[in-house]
Amino acid sequence: MRVKLTLAYDGTDFHGWQLQKNSNTIQGIMEQALEKICSMPIRIHGSGRTDSGTHALGQVAHFDPPSDRSDIPWQKALNSILPTSIRVIKARITDENFHARFSCISKTYSYTLWTEPDFLYPQRRHFVWQTGRVDLHLMEQAAKHLLGKQNFKSFMNKGTAVNSTCREIFSYSFDPGLYPQELVFRIKADGFLKQMVRNIMGALADIGRKKYPPDYMAWLIRLKNRKNASATAPAKGLCLEKVEYPGHID
Amino acid sequence: MRVKLTLAYDGTDFHGWQLQKNSNTIQGIMEQALEKICSMPIRIHGSGRTDSGTHALGQVAHFDPPSDRSDIPWQKALNSILPTSIRVIKARITDENFHARFSCISKTYSYTLWTEPDFLYPQRRHFVWQTGRVDLHLMEQAAKHLLGKQNFKSFMNKGTAVNSTCREIFSYSFDPGLYPQELVFRIKADGFLKQMVRNIMGALADIGRKKYPPDYMAWLIRLKNRKNASATAPAKGLCLEKVEYPGHID
Repeated sequence: MRVKLTLAYDGTDFHGWQLQKNSNTIQGIMEQALEKICSMPIRIHGSGRTDSGTHALGQVAHFDPPSDRSDIPWQKALNSILPTSIRVIKARITDENFHARFSCISKTYSYTLWTEPDFLYPQRRHFVWQTGRVDLHLMEQAAKHLLGKQNFKSFMNKGTAVNSTCREIFSYSFDPGLYPQELVFRIKADGFLKQMVRNIMGALADIGRKKYPPDYMAWLIRLKNRKNASATAPAKGLCLEKVEYPGHID
Repeated sequence: MRVKLTLAYDGTDFHGWQLQKNSNTIQGIMEQALEKICSMPIRIHGSGRTDSGTHALGQVAHFDPPSDRSDIPWQKALNSILPTSIRVIKARITDENFHARFSCISKTYSYTLWTEPDFLYPQRRHFVWQTGRVDLHLMEQAAKHLLGKQNFKSFMNKGTAVNSTCREIFSYSFDPGLYPQELVFRIKADGFLKQMVRNIMGALADIGRKKYPPDYMAWLIRLKNRKNASATAPAKGLCLEKVEYPGHID
């Protein structure tokens, strides 16, 4: 039996998704909760890592419970044990061929900017990056260069081995945020390289603040080199919103 | 010289507004910051207290700086010292007759409910009360009874001496919140008794969850007794949004 979970978390106090010794990670906390319910160690597989401080509204993970625990109401059982900084939004039995990471066909992230330079509402301080004013029109012109299947090596930080640095960006949008001072950049792709969204955001913010013209984005993509690119945007503005799978195994 | 400040804070980690010995309060932190800038103790006067865990987007306070500090850019100076959980949204020189508490003519609070019973986004856990589903129509019928100048003794918790338990409620509204699962109750009055909004919200939630009919609100007001009334709603859903003053001294 395989269970698919949809998870939301406030990443502020966690050292990211991935299990680490002596560190408070989301995967670690999830596995502790599952071990408590199942009375045995259970491995949980996420759709991918999220960085320390990065949030999720729709992370997806799967695990295989022991057969004597097959009728547990997983959402209720897990939410009663987990800290309130992690919530199970949905839990259901899924196809045995489903794999949270390998079956994934797209991911959507949001990145939220706070555009007011003089103050930042404390209620939002863990969820936005305060860039001050940005020129949306310039950022929109720059973002056009991102679409399609391309080599995004200039936007990959080191530390994870990958077969290819090509990814396909399906779509993006600039949307209003929760408060009028917010601007949300949403981006959907078949997958993302290490800190790719934060690196794209770093470049977009430099363009929005007129440090570089919109064509800087095209130049950066052609460069295929992280060196000399804009700095990585802070983790706290980033949120994994949605992970999608093909209908037949979902 | 008198300075008027508009403040926003995340009340989660504070023991409310009011100065207390050995306690982390917003007034206490503000006075520490002012003492640092002015090199002498400075008293700050808020428009009123907020409870431990209650938030603000538009709390107002005033203080009188020493004459040799008259040209300080207060917003910048304070925000550079204050923790990011408190922000100065606006600072300006005001009339010497202005008093944050005594000149106040109206206050507006919001109270946010989270109406989804099965999960609560962790990002919102410090800012909403998870009531589960409520019937908005019943709550709207009940809230009509609140309007006008009335004796709100049934909604006052003990602990603060007052001359009168009469207050005038000018208006209220039920609005969409930041997420689709949220319902925001806004209420504006010439002033509020101790924990009055939280006590009104407790009654409205009982009505929305069909524990009592809408007329319960009228019955409660007539009762003029806190005993047997609905429980006080949690502090974390409450936010002081706006404090208003007469134009001629503001």
